[in-house]
Amino acid sequence: MAVAQSELPRLHPVAGVQLGVAEAGVRKAGANDLVVMALQPGTRVAGVFTRNLFRAAPVRLAESNLRDDQPRYLLINTGNANAGTGPAGDQAARQNCAALAGYAGCRASQVIPFSTGVIGEPLPAARIDAALPAALEGLQPDHWALAADAIRTTDTRPKGRSQRLALSGGEVTLTGIAKGSGMIRPDMATMLAYVATDAQISTAALRQLLRGAVAVSFNRITVDGDTSTNDACMLMATGASGVALEADSDRQLFAEALTDLCTALAREIVADGEGATRDAAIQVTGARSIGEAERVAFSVAESPLFKTALFAADPNWGRILAAVGRAGVEDMDVDRVRIAIDDCPIVAAGGLSPDYDEALAARRMAADHVPVVIDLDRGGQAATVWTCDFSYDYVRINAEYRS
Amino acid sequence: MAVAQSELPRLHPVAGVQLGVAEAGVRKAGANDLVVMALQPGTRVAGVFTRNLFRAAPVRLAESNLRDDQPRYLLINTGNANAGTGPAGDQAARQNCAALAGYAGCRASQVIPFSTGVIGEPLPAARIDAALPAALEGLQPDHWALAADAIRTTDTRPKGRSQRLALSGGEVTLTGIAKGSGMIRPDMATMLAYVATDAQISTAALRQLLRGAVAVSFNRITVDGDTSTNDACMLMATGASGVALEADSDRQLFAEALTDLCTALAREIVADGEGATRDAAIQVTGARSIGEAERVAFSVAESPLFKTALFAADPNWGRILAAVGRAGVEDMDVDRVRIAIDDCPIVAAGGLSPDYDEALAARRMAADHVPVVIDLDRGGQAATVWTCDFSYDYVRINAEYRS
Repeated sequence: MAVAQSELPRLHPVAGVQLGVAEAGVRKAGANDLVVMALQPGTRVAGVFTRNLFRAAPVRLAESNLRDDQPRYLLINTGNANAGTGPAGDQAARQNCAALAGYAGCRASQVIPFSTGVIGEPLPAARIDAALPAALEGLQPDHWALAADAIRTTDTRPKGRSQRLALSGGEVTLTGIAKGSGMIRPDMATMLAYVATDAQISTAALRQLLRGAVAVSFNRITVDGDTSTNDACMLMATGASGVALEADSDRQLFAEALTDLCTALAREIVADGEGATRDAAIQVTGARSIGEAERVAFSVAESPLFKTALFAADPNWGRILAAVGRAGVEDMDVDRVRIAIDDCPIVAAGGLSPDYDEALAARRMAADHVPVVIDLDRGGQAATVWTCDFSYDYVRINAEYRS
Repeated sequence: MAVAQSELPRLHPVAGVQLGVAEAGVRKAGANDLVVMALQPGTRVAGVFTRNLFRAAPVRLAESNLRDDQPRYLLINTGNANAGTGPAGDQAARQNCAALAGYAGCRASQVIPFSTGVIGEPLPAARIDAALPAALEGLQPDHWALAADAIRTTDTRPKGRSQRLALSGGEVTLTGIAKGSGMIRPDMATMLAYVATDAQISTAALRQLLRGAVAVSFNRITVDGDTSTNDACMLMATGASGVALEADSDRQLFAEALTDLCTALAREIVADGEGATRDAAIQVTGARSIGEAERVAFSVAESPLFKTALFAADPNWGRILAAVGRAGVEDMDVDRVRIAIDDCPIVAAGGLSPDYDEALAARRMAADHVPVVIDLDRGGQAATVWTCDFSYDYVRINAEYRS
């Protein structure tokens, strides 16, 4: 099940990036499970990785290889996360990078590896090696949609976004794909996102842009409060357009476009959350700090009681109020807190709002996308966190996954 | 549904405490929903209350009345939490205390009020007032089991524990009852516990004893990570036995007995968790601090992915490992972490233990009570947190509650 969403939009090629897919049979036969992204020489790459202390072998190797400032290939396999696999897992990841480097004629440290799939099973590295020639032969600039499809695990649909942006020096393209159907399925880890642009951006600026965008997009979604051993988000700038971010206004425009694109991809992950039938945007305003706004928003977004009420389309305001009250915000005056579901006020002055309309609230809770608006009325900061509901299917998918 | 558990044990009377129940019809007719506990003059009382910022009217009044050092009555109603009810709720709580004080001939501030039930509906204070005479007429020392039954809301069974304890000055009795079926049902708030003893203990010592016991019992359980607007735990010492806690060894014995009793009641709440089919004890050892051990234990205990695996009796070690890794413990060397399900090793050296036995692990996960043992191997501190599984029934109960 998944929340109703539009089709995969057209994904514009990004000059300097080619993508190839292949069927390696990592876990099952009959579907592409290997993606190679080739980056033209000089491409700058920035990455953010899971903060989970148990990091998969490819995550450790990717971080290490990124210290080589001339990355040329991203190598992604699904079906097996190569996590919890010990030293043999490190060796397997290195073997695949070396094999790709051998075929492509580059250093092994110029290959950045990613794995997603089952935890704790040995990576069938030889099967991946064997499929590399097919992926390399198929490299094409317009294979973004094929790649979006090939990186799926339990995702019910491919996820991608693309945009062309006019800057003072000319037009640039931003295209991104993502996969993820829970913030984590520790046995089907996890969230991966790849965004490329043909703009000319330094590595330092790229890192800053990525951190800024991820902080308010991928780090603001939750399906079950978990973060995985394999999460990664990559941003590549080929420079092939010849357009640099010279003016401050260009930088600003690009940062906004990147944030919008990442937010759209992040929201697709929530909408495709395990068993999701609707999603909610928890919008907290009037906080003293962004961290405070995030704490309150996550407290609601991760509450199983709120999420089951969302599933039932039940405007159960007591559950929202209690989640706000236990968020750990000090000295909060609860009598000033106002809560609304979309345009329907539900809480004011520490209790039910006099303007509460149960029928209207129930209609708003039954929408595909439910905005929950929480004004703490104690400052000027805000944050939005996206989440989905908790359904019978969530329990079924996660209880029966390995059976 | 609920985890298999023994019957309500015999609850010994506590000299100086009498209990009376009545049917006030607060929400439904046909069951006792009012409890009065009468305490002999001189009884010392300590209480801990919810840390949720949205505190119900009776919680605010109870804390205020406890400043009167001569409490004589506890007044408990179920069916309505008197939470989210604004100034009218405060007035209703005060009215009930004043009415009981009028019948009993004491000050209103000597009555400590508690409410549990639906949030956000006006408390039918007049119906409670009208039932007070019946509750007072029925006061008896041996009505603990009746009271345990009357304070239930959605609990599937009454919860109580009782113990006699030999101290150097003679024998004392400890008897306690509790209710709760999630850490919170914000619309059927919440957890309440009442423990009485006939030992002679000062108010200051009583507060210290209660804080110590609650920290490792009621504050170490989680059904859904939520805490409610009405949680309260009270400890009363009548002194009627004439036995004081003179020697350090007496203090130690009493503290241990109180902790055991509170832990047993807390575990009963988890075993009766909404939709629970089995429970788990997350035992973290080798931590640098108790707080660190608690963080890791709660990270596992609150993980919906672990809880659905527990429901499926699936020894899904990747989910436990990932929850440990995201607990926010700094500088933890994951290669030293060892995880076992009961006597079955599952994780060692950052991956699957070489001694892992899938069939044994599956048998251990299928028990009524599942110990999960996590050794961080970086210090000497430990903590245990109890939780229950996430079942279809959890979703059903919480999604359909108001429909």
